[in-house]
Amino acid sequence: MKVVIIGGVAGGATAAARLRRLNEAAEIVIIERTGYVSYANCGLPYYIGGVITDRAKLTLQTPESFWDRFRIDVRVRQEAVSIDRGARTVSIRRLDDGSVYAERYDKLILSPGARPVDPGMPGTDSERLFTLRTVEDTFRIHDFVKREHPQTATIVGGGFIGLEMAENLSERGLDVTVVQRGSHLMPTLDQDMAAILHNNLRKHGIRVLLDANVTGFSALNEGIRTALAEGAPLDADLAIMAVGVAPESTLAREAGLELGLRGAIKVDEHLRTSDPDIYAVGDAIEVKHAVTGKPALIALAGPANKQGRIAADNICGIDRTFKGSQGSSVLKMFDLTVATTGLTLRAAQAAGLAADAVVLTPANHATYYPGSESLVMKVIFEQNTGRILGAQIVGGAGSDKRIDVIATAIRAGMDATDLTELDLAYAPPYASAKDPVNMAGYLIENILEGRVEQVGWSEALELAACEHGSEASPVLLDTRTADEVARGSVEGALHVPLDELRERLDELPGGRRLLVFCQSGLRSYVACRILTQHGFSCANVSGGYGFLEQTLRDGALPPSGTGPCGRQV
Amino acid sequence: MKVVIIGGVAGGATAAARLRRLNEAAEIVIIERTGYVSYANCGLPYYIGGVITDRAKLTLQTPESFWDRFRIDVRVRQEAVSIDRGARTVSIRRLDDGSVYAERYDKLILSPGARPVDPGMPGTDSERLFTLRTVEDTFRIHDFVKREHPQTATIVGGGFIGLEMAENLSERGLDVTVVQRGSHLMPTLDQDMAAILHNNLRKHGIRVLLDANVTGFSALNEGIRTALAEGAPLDADLAIMAVGVAPESTLAREAGLELGLRGAIKVDEHLRTSDPDIYAVGDAIEVKHAVTGKPALIALAGPANKQGRIAADNICGIDRTFKGSQGSSVLKMFDLTVATTGLTLRAAQAAGLAADAVVLTPANHATYYPGSESLVMKVIFEQNTGRILGAQIVGGAGSDKRIDVIATAIRAGMDATDLTELDLAYAPPYASAKDPVNMAGYLIENILEGRVEQVGWSEALELAACEHGSEASPVLLDTRTADEVARGSVEGALHVPLDELRERLDELPGGRRLLVFCQSGLRSYVACRILTQHGFSCANVSGGYGFLEQTLRDGALPPSGTGPCGRQV
Repeated sequence: MKVVIIGGVAGGATAAARLRRLNEAAEIVIIERTGYVSYANCGLPYYIGGVITDRAKLTLQTPESFWDRFRIDVRVRQEAVSIDRGARTVSIRRLDDGSVYAERYDKLILSPGARPVDPGMPGTDSERLFTLRTVEDTFRIHDFVKREHPQTATIVGGGFIGLEMAENLSERGLDVTVVQRGSHLMPTLDQDMAAILHNNLRKHGIRVLLDANVTGFSALNEGIRTALAEGAPLDADLAIMAVGVAPESTLAREAGLELGLRGAIKVDEHLRTSDPDIYAVGDAIEVKHAVTGKPALIALAGPANKQGRIAADNICGIDRTFKGSQGSSVLKMFDLTVATTGLTLRAAQAAGLAADAVVLTPANHATYYPGSESLVMKVIFEQNTGRILGAQIVGGAGSDKRIDVIATAIRAGMDATDLTELDLAYAPPYASAKDPVNMAGYLIENILEGRVEQVGWSEALELAACEHGSEASPVLLDTRTADEVARGSVEGALHVPLDELRERLDELPGGRRLLVFCQSGLRSYVACRILTQHGFSCANVSGGYGFLEQTLRDGALPPSGTGPCGRQV
Repeated sequence: MKVVIIGGVAGGATAAARLRRLNEAAEIVIIERTGYVSYANCGLPYYIGGVITDRAKLTLQTPESFWDRFRIDVRVRQEAVSIDRGARTVSIRRLDDGSVYAERYDKLILSPGARPVDPGMPGTDSERLFTLRTVEDTFRIHDFVKREHPQTATIVGGGFIGLEMAENLSERGLDVTVVQRGSHLMPTLDQDMAAILHNNLRKHGIRVLLDANVTGFSALNEGIRTALAEGAPLDADLAIMAVGVAPESTLAREAGLELGLRGAIKVDEHLRTSDPDIYAVGDAIEVKHAVTGKPALIALAGPANKQGRIAADNICGIDRTFKGSQGSSVLKMFDLTVATTGLTLRAAQAAGLAADAVVLTPANHATYYPGSESLVMKVIFEQNTGRILGAQIVGGAGSDKRIDVIATAIRAGMDATDLTELDLAYAPPYASAKDPVNMAGYLIENILEGRVEQVGWSEALELAACEHGSEASPVLLDTRTADEVARGSVEGALHVPLDELRERLDELPGGRRLLVFCQSGLRSYVACRILTQHGFSCANVSGGYGFLEQTLRDGALPPSGTGPCGRQV
C-alpha cells in the first residue's frame, strides 16, 4: 500500500506516523510545500517575541528524523498541483526548479491547512506587511525585527494570531495597535467578556481600534501606512495581516471533490472525501460542530492531530470516526488567560438554541491561601434542558483548567446539575471546596428551577433608565457595603447593604421591580432570595458591578457618563 | 420549621446557608463544639507553616456574621450529647459551664465530621504530641512552635494531614521524619506512584520511614520519644499523630440510627438517615463510591459541601440526590502536585474489577515553550470495556487540571476512546495539541485493541531474571540512545536504539520474547509495533526506565543492586 500525504504539519504528520506504526510495509510519502515538516506552528509567534530563543526548537522534526524513525519519505519544498483521481496520481511540483512529476497513490490524505485570508486590498505586496503561517514567515518577521529595529506595529485582525503577535511584539518593546473590523476582539468570546481582554491589552500599552475597516496599505519612507475607511490612517514600521484563515481547498476543488462551508473539503465521519481513496484532515475540512451538530470550520491544532490519526486508522482498516469539534481554545495574553469551549451566547442564539448564560467571578483557589487569582466565567446553557452549550473564562491561573473540565462535561452532554455534582480535586492551593465549575452549575440550576430571575446589565440599565420616574419603572438596588459604594456605583441606584436588608425592607418601593446587584452577583442572589420571600418582585443583575465596570472601562456602553436614555452611569 | 444542625463546618455550614436562602421563615440553629464556625479547615496546616499568616483568615465567618447575613443562630462551644428521637429534641451541653439544655427540632442535620483515630497506645497524653482537627488544635501547635522553637518533629501517619504537616513544619525549618505503617505514603496512590512522592520528600530533607509500627510515646527531658516495634525509637521536640480519621458517629449510634461501614452513619441517596427527620452529611456518613457503587468512607471537603446543600434542599421539599463520591483529591508537596481520582489499581483489583493501568510521562505543555514540567500519570481502566476507573498524577503544574478532566470523564462513564476524543483547549503555554489526557486514552486504546502488549517493571525484571540464561527466557531490550544508556540502564539488557532497530533486527534473539523499554514508554511502543510486524513476540515495559529509576531510588525493589533472583539492576 502506498499512501501520499499532502501537508506535513499537525494532521499530516500525525497521520504519517500512525500509518507507519500500523503498517511497516506501507510506502508513505509526505509532500510539504514549505521547507519544514511537523514544525511547532503554534509556537511561531513566541519565536518572534523572543520567548522561544532557539530556532531549532521550532523544527525539532526533520525529513531525516522522519526517515530514521518512521521510514517516511518527506519531500519538502514540493507542492501538489493536481490530482488525477482516475489514475490515482498526484502531480507534484518541485519548488526549487519548477519541475513536475507524478506520484501514484493507493490512498491520498489531504492535510493542506488553511491560508491567511487575503482581503484583496491595495498595497498588500508591501515588504513591511507580513502574514504568519509558516516557519519561513516567522523567520522573515523575526529577521525584519532584528534588522530594522521597528518601534511600532499595526496588527490587522484580533483573533489568535493577531493577538499572539500583538503580545509578542509588545513584549519586544514595540508600540502596537490592533485593528479589528468587528465590535470586539476574539470572536470566540461574547462582547461582554471581550471587554476584559480589551482592558487588559490597553493596560499593557496596546492600542485597540474596534469597528475599524482597513481599506489598504501604502509605503512610507521607512514605514507602512494602514488606511482606514474612517479616521486617520495608522503609520507604523511594520504591519501584520491576520484577518483570519480560509480552508486551502484549491487542489480538492480542482479535483472535483465535494466542498462544503466556505469551500472547505467535505468529509464523512471517517474523514473520507467524496472520493473513497482520498481522506482529508485539519483546517481544510468542514467538521460537525459537536454542540450544534451543524457544519463548522474549526482551524485548531488539537482536532487536526486527532483527525490525522483517525484517517490513518481508517486507511489501515480500523473503523474509527471523528465525532466533531467544539472549538476549545486558550490564549495567553500577558498575565491573562482567555479560554473558551463550545458556543458563545451569541452563537448559540444564532444557531436557534434557547440559550442563556450565567456570569460569575470566582477565585481560582481558596482565598485564604496566598496568591489566589480571580476568574471571570461565563457559562452558556440551554434554557429548557439545562444542557451546557459553552463557556468562556478570562482570568488568572486555573482558567484553562475550568475550561477543560467544562469541555469534557459538554462532550458528555452534561447539564447544570451534572456540573454541581462533579467531584473535583480540592486543596487550598488549587481550588475551592465548591469549585468554580460546581458554582456555575448551582447558578444555572437556581435559574432553571425558578429560584431566582436574572437580568443582564444592558437590560437592567435600560429598564431602570427608560421608564425613569414612572411609578412602574424598575429600581436598581445596590446591596454592597458603604465602602464599596463609595468607590463607585450606578447613579440613582438605591443602596441597602445585604446584611441590613431584612431590617430595611420598608425603605424599598413596594410594587416596583427590584434589579439587585452587588460586586459579583453572589450577595445580590442572597438578597433576591430574601426579597422574593418577602413578596418583592426582583431580578439579580448578572455579573455584578465588577462586570459592569469592565464594560464601562472598555467604553462599550455609551461613554461620557450616560447610559441608555440619557441616564447617568 | 425549625432545623437544628450539629456541626458548623463544611457540610453543616453549607446546609444552614442554603436552608436560609430557601426559607426565610425557618428557625435554624447550629451547634458547634469548637469555638469557631465554618472555618478554613483545609487551611489549618498552612497557618502552622506560616504560609497563611493572618489568624483571621482561617476564621472569616463568625457566629455574628452568620446571624447578620443569614439569621442563623450559631452556638459555639456547645456539644450535642444525645437525641430523643421520639420527642424530637437534642440535649446540648454548654462546654463553658457544663450545663445541659434540650433543643426541639423539626429536622435535624448531623454534620459531626470525623475524628483523628486514636490507636490507643501508651503516652498519647504527652503535651508534645498533637493531633490536628480544629482551629484550637492549630493554635496549640502554632503556639508551641513559636514558644518552644522545636528543631525536630516526628509525624506518625503519611496521609493528607500528616504530609501537609510534614511540608509545613519542614518549611519552618524543622527536621521532619514521617513514619508510616504501610509500605507507602498516601493510600490514594499505588505503591509505584508513591515512590515519586517518597523521593521528593527525601529531596526536601524529610526522612521517610515505611513499614514502621509505632508502639507508643514517652516523655523525654525537653522532647518526646516515639517507640517503634522494630529499630531505634525516634526522638524529637514534638510529634504529630495523623494516622487517619474515623466517622464521628457516637451520637448517631446512641440514638439508634442505622450505621454502616466502620460505624459511619447510613443515609439514603437523599442523605436521610434511618430516621426520616434526621439527615447526615460529611465525613461521618457512609457514601456510595461513584466508581465501584459500593459503600465507602470518603472524608473530603468537596463532597461534604455538596451534601450539605443537598440535605437542605430535601428538607425544603426539593427532591435532590447525592449520587456518590469518587475521592478526587490533590495535595501540594513542595514543588510537587499529587492528584488522584477514582480507584487505584490496587483498589480496583480488590473491588473485583478486571483492571489494568497505563503509565505515561507527558510534559504539562509544549516542550518548545519555556518552563514545561513533567507529569507522571497512571490511568486505571477496566480491561473489557475500557471504562476509566481512576487516575493518579504526580508532577508539576497542570497535574490538578488533568485529574479534574479525568474526574469529569469518570463521572460521565467515559471509556478510553472517549478520552482520545476530548476536545481540550490547547496553546503552547498550557498544553499540547494531544493533551496528556488524550495520550492516556490512546495508550489504553492500543492495549485494548491488541496493538501492543504491556508488562510492568516488576514482572519484566522477574521474567527476565528468573529464567536467566534459559533459551526460553524473555530478554530486556533498551531502545534508548547510547547517551541515555551511558547514564544507566538495566544490566544485561540488550541495547538497540529505536532509530537503528529496523537494520539490526538480526541481532535480536529469535524465538525469545522481547521486553522493550525506553525512557518513558513512547519509543518502546514504536519499537514494539516494528517488532510485532516483523514477527517478534514483544511487550512494552510500562512507564519506561524513568519510572523504574524512581522505584529504585525509593528502594522499593530489593536494594544493593540486585533485582529478583539475584539479577543486578
